[in-house]
Amino acid sequence: MENFVFYPRTKYVFGRGVENKVAGELKAFGMNKPLIVYGQGSVIRSGLLDRVKKCLEEAGIEYAELGDVQPNPVDTLVYEGIEKARKEGIDSLLAVGGGSAIDTAKAIAAAMCYDGDFWDLYCGTKVKAALPVGVVLTIPAAGSEGSGNTVITKVEGLHKKGMGSDCLRPRFSLLNPELTYTLPPYQTAAGITDMLAHLMERYFSNTEGVELTDRLGEGVMKAIIEVAPKVMAHPDDYDARANIMWSGTMAHNGLTGCGRIDDWATHGLEHELSAVYGVTHGAGLAVMFPAWMTYAADINPHKLAQFARRVFGVQEADDTKAAFAGISALKTFFKSIGMPTDMNELGITEPDIKLLSTKVVENKGAEFGNYIKVNEKVAEAIYRIAAGE
Amino acid sequence: MENFVFYPRTKYVFGRGVENKVAGELKAFGMNKPLIVYGQGSVIRSGLLDRVKKCLEEAGIEYAELGDVQPNPVDTLVYEGIEKARKEGIDSLLAVGGGSAIDTAKAIAAAMCYDGDFWDLYCGTKVKAALPVGVVLTIPAAGSEGSGNTVITKVEGLHKKGMGSDCLRPRFSLLNPELTYTLPPYQTAAGITDMLAHLMERYFSNTEGVELTDRLGEGVMKAIIEVAPKVMAHPDDYDARANIMWSGTMAHNGLTGCGRIDDWATHGLEHELSAVYGVTHGAGLAVMFPAWMTYAADINPHKLAQFARRVFGVQEADDTKAAFAGISALKTFFKSIGMPTDMNELGITEPDIKLLSTKVVENKGAEFGNYIKVNEKVAEAIYRIAAGE
Repeated sequence: MENFVFYPRTKYVFGRGVENKVAGELKAFGMNKPLIVYGQGSVIRSGLLDRVKKCLEEAGIEYAELGDVQPNPVDTLVYEGIEKARKEGIDSLLAVGGGSAIDTAKAIAAAMCYDGDFWDLYCGTKVKAALPVGVVLTIPAAGSEGSGNTVITKVEGLHKKGMGSDCLRPRFSLLNPELTYTLPPYQTAAGITDMLAHLMERYFSNTEGVELTDRLGEGVMKAIIEVAPKVMAHPDDYDARANIMWSGTMAHNGLTGCGRIDDWATHGLEHELSAVYGVTHGAGLAVMFPAWMTYAADINPHKLAQFARRVFGVQEADDTKAAFAGISALKTFFKSIGMPTDMNELGITEPDIKLLSTKVVENKGAEFGNYIKVNEKVAEAIYRIAAGE
Repeated sequence: MENFVFYPRTKYVFGRGVENKVAGELKAFGMNKPLIVYGQGSVIRSGLLDRVKKCLEEAGIEYAELGDVQPNPVDTLVYEGIEKARKEGIDSLLAVGGGSAIDTAKAIAAAMCYDGDFWDLYCGTKVKAALPVGVVLTIPAAGSEGSGNTVITKVEGLHKKGMGSDCLRPRFSLLNPELTYTLPPYQTAAGITDMLAHLMERYFSNTEGVELTDRLGEGVMKAIIEVAPKVMAHPDDYDARANIMWSGTMAHNGLTGCGRIDDWATHGLEHELSAVYGVTHGAGLAVMFPAWMTYAADINPHKLAQFARRVFGVQEADDTKAAFAGISALKTFFKSIGMPTDMNELGITEPDIKLLSTKVVENKGAEFGNYIKVNEKVAEAIYRIAAGE
């Protein structure tokens, strides 16, 4: 087991109606004038945003607003948010939405405590301080409500980059599963895929002696796979939505990564699909993960085999055979919840594989990933598998 | 799933040599003059206490000291600590040791922010504030390094009572598995039992729709059962010690209890054994848990059966039969690590069952527990099972 620091400092308030506690939590954490960050449609249409604003107004909390966050959130809106935050003298951020709103809020939170261009912080400059961030979650997927991570796309050149710091972990996150009842099936399934991907990125590790984090990761994966059919069949099943929502948080708050070297190659590979073709991140992962696993199974099957046996109950003594049976089971699962498993199904009929593999090493480095090493040539091979070539 | 608040605010620094980071963490959390709380022997003999004090001195951090904490820590030392803390003007607590040192430190931390008798806080008065607590852990067992809980025994009348508050969660915990190499086998095994008990108290629940927390609990239990033989055979196996240490924290920080109604009857039953006969808490639990399960299996077997199947791989379709097979497997496990499984093996040859069952309802109420309800008569029946009658 590797040494680690794990600082899961977020306060979670989970259950029916918890969004109405937003003013109390803001005050408890000394967040007196937040910038509310939200997306384009559903939080407005559902009336949630109005309810949140009303809570703040009734509690005498001033706020400013930044709407119009898009999926795969972009730097241009972050710059706009920074300007607004400075002008309005805000002291905190309140994201109302999913990963895109939260990641945008985190970017602004870090930028407000940094003198240079905020994009530096996504290119290696360490975040040393940030304004506090609070969350009202509406989309369980990215896990940003419990993580210190944020991913932003630079519009110029379509560079999608992530970074993280414990000081960006939300101070509080309000999680009401009822707010997710109206999520369309495709977005629900993409969220489920994103969670599984966060777990797999940590699970596929060569670190020895990590029995506990292996078991924790398997536990969350098994719960997701067990509950997913229920939530797809009954979008208003409270317990199913609750399990999925909490799984998304547990999948990405670092719990299942403690003491091990994570992989994260597949997220790198997928980020290029999202950046170039604008696909939904989760759907892109449903395509890229099995492709990465297929490439890895021949080289380093041991953890893929353990995954197959423990998560999908594959009974097969040979590691490579078990690994391939696990990949097949995972694809079947993705199909069962309506996810694509190759680029064609994702709507990318003529992928520019050369562009994708050039860009991925540009953004991730000449060699990336840990379970297996991925360079431009390997990336190309994996993209070809994903393209069904 | 039930609504819940989960605020796991502790910063964990885990790995070799992390105790040497104590001064930096104290400063980072604004803890400028701690009262160091420690036990009677091993932290002194091993030189750990001196090393910690040297770290503080080199960093220019003043401190006061309170030693001599005993297993099943008592109120009299807490009063002594409060007096010392007030006299010395300390602003924080630093526990160096296991659950007893940490629980004593938490009691003092809460008392310093409360005007009345600190024992009120163990009798229902809510803790509203506390001085910050830091931990250097040497005994993985109680899980107090990651919880807001504390258990203290009132010497007069031998009342052992617990209480909890998020404000008592340690600000930081430094966990170096190497510090546990010298733990005697009996104490190692008692710690392992305590962890399993913390997980089982949460696992045996009637709350429906808690797939994720079921799986998380099973995961930690499976990891402990997998690693325990390694740590018993090789006390200086770093990875085995590391997995056990981290399991102890995960078993009791609330993670596996989110959204469910816990049980905690067995801890109540065991606390009387510790208070009356002075037995090691973990060893007492190895006796009381199978006894409680045996009583529960006839009345409400469903979760015991799931435990048997998922944690011990019992293959038995009938719930009651599966439950009893699970109890048997658990006892075999306890025996394999040298734990007693009845009162006689625990050294209690002539238990005063009437006294135990009278005291338990005195301390826990006329009816306690949630998976099954325990009153004085049921308690007596469970103590009789534990006594092998």
